[in-house]
Amino acid sequence: MNLHLLKDDLLSLEKRYRAQLLNHVSGYKSAQLLGTQDAKGHTNLAVFNSLMHIGANPPLIGILSRPLTVTRHSYDNLKETGYYTLNAIHEGILAQAHQCSAKYEKGQSEFAASGLSEEYIEGFGAPFVKESHIKMGLKYVEEYKIEANGTILVIGEIQHLILPKAILAKDGFVRLAEADTVAISGLDAYHQVSPLKRYSYARPDQDLDELGL
Amino acid sequence: MNLHLLKDDLLSLEKRYRAQLLNHVSGYKSAQLLGTQDAKGHTNLAVFNSLMHIGANPPLIGILSRPLTVTRHSYDNLKETGYYTLNAIHEGILAQAHQCSAKYEKGQSEFAASGLSEEYIEGFGAPFVKESHIKMGLKYVEEYKIEANGTILVIGEIQHLILPKAILAKDGFVRLAEADTVAISGLDAYHQVSPLKRYSYARPDQDLDELGL
Repeated sequence: MNLHLLKDDLLSLEKRYRAQLLNHVSGYKSAQLLGTQDAKGHTNLAVFNSLMHIGANPPLIGILSRPLTVTRHSYDNLKETGYYTLNAIHEGILAQAHQCSAKYEKGQSEFAASGLSEEYIEGFGAPFVKESHIKMGLKYVEEYKIEANGTILVIGEIQHLILPKAILAKDGFVRLAEADTVAISGLDAYHQVSPLKRYSYARPDQDLDELGL
Repeated sequence: MNLHLLKDDLLSLEKRYRAQLLNHVSGYKSAQLLGTQDAKGHTNLAVFNSLMHIGANPPLIGILSRPLTVTRHSYDNLKETGYYTLNAIHEGILAQAHQCSAKYEKGQSEFAASGLSEEYIEGFGAPFVKESHIKMGLKYVEEYKIEANGTILVIGEIQHLILPKAILAKDGFVRLAEADTVAISGLDAYHQVSPLKRYSYARPDQDLDELGL
């Protein structure tokens, strides 16, 4: 049996119920830790699930500024320094990663609180998460304020990309599951992901081939 | 062993290799079919994997206009009518859904070509996919042209939300896996997803509780 909710039904729901429901119906999302530091070198780490591939040339990623932690330390820091990192959450660091969504005071680092380790690349002004397997170092490019609700889409360009050699296939395909990469749904649920099918480039009036995974 | 790629390394990669790689490193994405029609009622269906939860109040979703099909029929149609649908791809319709990423001529409907069925809601100007389990009907609100690469972020407001009653928990949590909802990675790989952990709201200096899934 289906539920059919209209816009007014959604608006009349209790606030947290609505947030959970609407964070789910858009489907599975990438689960990332966003690493930043302020000009004095105080580090910050936050769970982000609003990530968008913007383009490959130049290599661009979008994030929506409203981390699971409501505070804006991440945004303030990345604007201050111009740099930030995205570190894929995997099964081995789930609880530590989720702990980073707590509201810590500015100056209290989520690295220390969660037990995750800071890692630096010479000349790059933001901390990576040592325990993560797939990491990106980004440089702030531009931002768009979404008028409809005041959130901010931040666009960054990939300066560094680090991933295990063993999970990269010959054609650029990355076996994310072999790095235990998780997906997130809603606000607080983490999922294991396993490959089902990979298909050939689709063309009209031609059958699809299945590619190896 | 890790690979460490710099921006210039990424820019020097072969085009399709770079697209595949960079579509992967941003992690798992929501796999959706975007349904539209033009003013004459010609329908269109396209695979979209660039979806972003923008907010719950009002209920907003962002999509990046550059479907897997490069053509812009979806964008033209949703601008023409102001309406579009997002229909979650599930395991039962994988090959049919992927076929919708082929480049059909305008006027040749992906519904007919894939065998998926059109479904309508009185007064709503875009086709839903009957076989999908989780469906949203959206109204165009606004758009932002991303200067860095010319893609367009389209913001829509949810007017209709349809999902099976059995997968909705008391607190708004949606058991996506029970509807066989898949995730997508890269450009062409579909994944099965199974719940790992759900955690309580994180607070400083407090242990996390695991919630039921």
